[in-house]
Amino acid sequence: MNKLAVIALGGNALLRDKQKGTIEEQEANTTETLENILYLLKEGYNLVLTHGNGPQVGNIVLRNDAGEQIYNIPQMPLDICVADSQGGIGYMLERCLRNVLKKHGIEKNVLTLVSLVEVKAEDSAFQNPTKRIGKIVDSAEAEKLSKEKGWIYKEEKKETIGLRRVVPSPQPYKIMNWDIIEQNARAGIIVIAAGGGGVPVYTDPEGKLKPAEAVIDKDLASALLANEIKADEFYILTDVPYIYIDYKGPNEQKLEFLNHDDAVKYAEQGMFGEGSMAPKVKAALQFIKNGGEKSIITEAKKLADKSFGTKITMVSG
Amino acid sequence: MNKLAVIALGGNALLRDKQKGTIEEQEANTTETLENILYLLKEGYNLVLTHGNGPQVGNIVLRNDAGEQIYNIPQMPLDICVADSQGGIGYMLERCLRNVLKKHGIEKNVLTLVSLVEVKAEDSAFQNPTKRIGKIVDSAEAEKLSKEKGWIYKEEKKETIGLRRVVPSPQPYKIMNWDIIEQNARAGIIVIAAGGGGVPVYTDPEGKLKPAEAVIDKDLASALLANEIKADEFYILTDVPYIYIDYKGPNEQKLEFLNHDDAVKYAEQGMFGEGSMAPKVKAALQFIKNGGEKSIITEAKKLADKSFGTKITMVSG
Repeated sequence: MNKLAVIALGGNALLRDKQKGTIEEQEANTTETLENILYLLKEGYNLVLTHGNGPQVGNIVLRNDAGEQIYNIPQMPLDICVADSQGGIGYMLERCLRNVLKKHGIEKNVLTLVSLVEVKAEDSAFQNPTKRIGKIVDSAEAEKLSKEKGWIYKEEKKETIGLRRVVPSPQPYKIMNWDIIEQNARAGIIVIAAGGGGVPVYTDPEGKLKPAEAVIDKDLASALLANEIKADEFYILTDVPYIYIDYKGPNEQKLEFLNHDDAVKYAEQGMFGEGSMAPKVKAALQFIKNGGEKSIITEAKKLADKSFGTKITMVSG
Repeated sequence: MNKLAVIALGGNALLRDKQKGTIEEQEANTTETLENILYLLKEGYNLVLTHGNGPQVGNIVLRNDAGEQIYNIPQMPLDICVADSQGGIGYMLERCLRNVLKKHGIEKNVLTLVSLVEVKAEDSAFQNPTKRIGKIVDSAEAEKLSKEKGWIYKEEKKETIGLRRVVPSPQPYKIMNWDIIEQNARAGIIVIAAGGGGVPVYTDPEGKLKPAEAVIDKDLASALLANEIKADEFYILTDVPYIYIDYKGPNEQKLEFLNHDDAVKYAEQGMFGEGSMAPKVKAALQFIKNGGEKSIITEAKKLADKSFGTKITMVSG
């Protein structure tokens, strides 16, 4: 039986730092990234692709704000914005992938799904929203929007001083239609799913499926999907070829092989960058802990060279 | 074998005249519409749902314009806007449908696909764009945008005097992944696909799949899909219970049964409203002509009463 792999495309697979975010930039980046995954197809892997949506959904949220200001168009809630981004990015990925496959004479079909992801209403993330979205505002506007829309604001310390809306980032619990994803992927179709971590939904006390005004970490959702479909390998593509200890510090050390217990230990010691590598390692470990064979964190362009990338397994080897 | 039906949800299934377009309005309308299709499920039909996206994609296009004005975010081309709307509407439909099914104790799964639809580059529609989108502008701005973005403008005579961007509405040629849609629908899963008529793409002379800056009529795309998956019946849901001849005129006559040749004759005589009923009749006839058994044009709330609705078949009966 062919091996099955989930590949989580990182933010920079689609859009890079300092780019404006035009569609031409996104298509060029996407095509370059997809060229690199051909190697896995040639090795006979069946593939499921997931992707981030950070800059895109950020732009959609801002466009909703601007559309209300200029044209008085009602803003859509965050779940609709995430779903919009799944449509737009998923379609672009599918079209670019079809072209890359055709260029290389690979006869494979591509299927893009809209993915709902169940989270738990009692997830503690809902009491402690941390994910920053939308525009930076002053305290007067933050107060007004909090009152009007029930949004929560926290201080923003990045480039501009001000406040920014924060939303919860709950743990994904179930990727809806994972069975259909698995079935199609094992039939040789490249499936694009769980985009942006999926649209978060939860079941309310009356049993109704409700939208969660939240965003799900795309690597955690991808790891969950990888376990659900019993993928053999889980790739997290990022902008460095390896995980490093003390990255860019005096004792920088690249890691080629990393076993579960060492990774947990390093993570507890805070040796991976919070907000950059640490959540990726967490997702890789989740996959391994739940039965996955191997997780690889690397750059897309290093995929074809098996010597590159940090391989995380249960035991070293 | 269970019968297979495609149901095209019209604009007012999701959003009604004089509504602002809030998510609350859209969810309430959607849920009401979906309650009505339960009848077909109880009759044992397998279902594929398609939907329009007129107001939603119109709003997305305007938000893109506003986002550039206020936040300098690059505007996305029309194909991405259509794909965004497939994600947002498809997700909302899926979630509402899961709730309706659960409420009525019906154990059915729901699957939402992002749909690319092939059109032909040589379609004459590309020489004669007719579909109006985006904001109404004065002649100076129309000239500026035509130069900057290559958009084509025509006079707008509706409510405001001005010019409005027009895009082609080419004939759909193939719904990508229709086979996967069929397979899942026949397995009893309710599939949501071809939203907004699908994202139009064409193959350029080098064999590359390119985005078409166009919109596809959702009823024509739905009829094509219905033929591709060999659906038995094709429903077009709209805001009247029947097709009428001379609608609201002195000789108004409701049609309960309509055969192919009569429908063609009436259409040629211009007896159906252009821009309202005429394109729906065209789509229904396309389905019948290409082998479909029966096409029904009616209101969602009349679905459960078989006596309602105009039934179009090859021969009367």
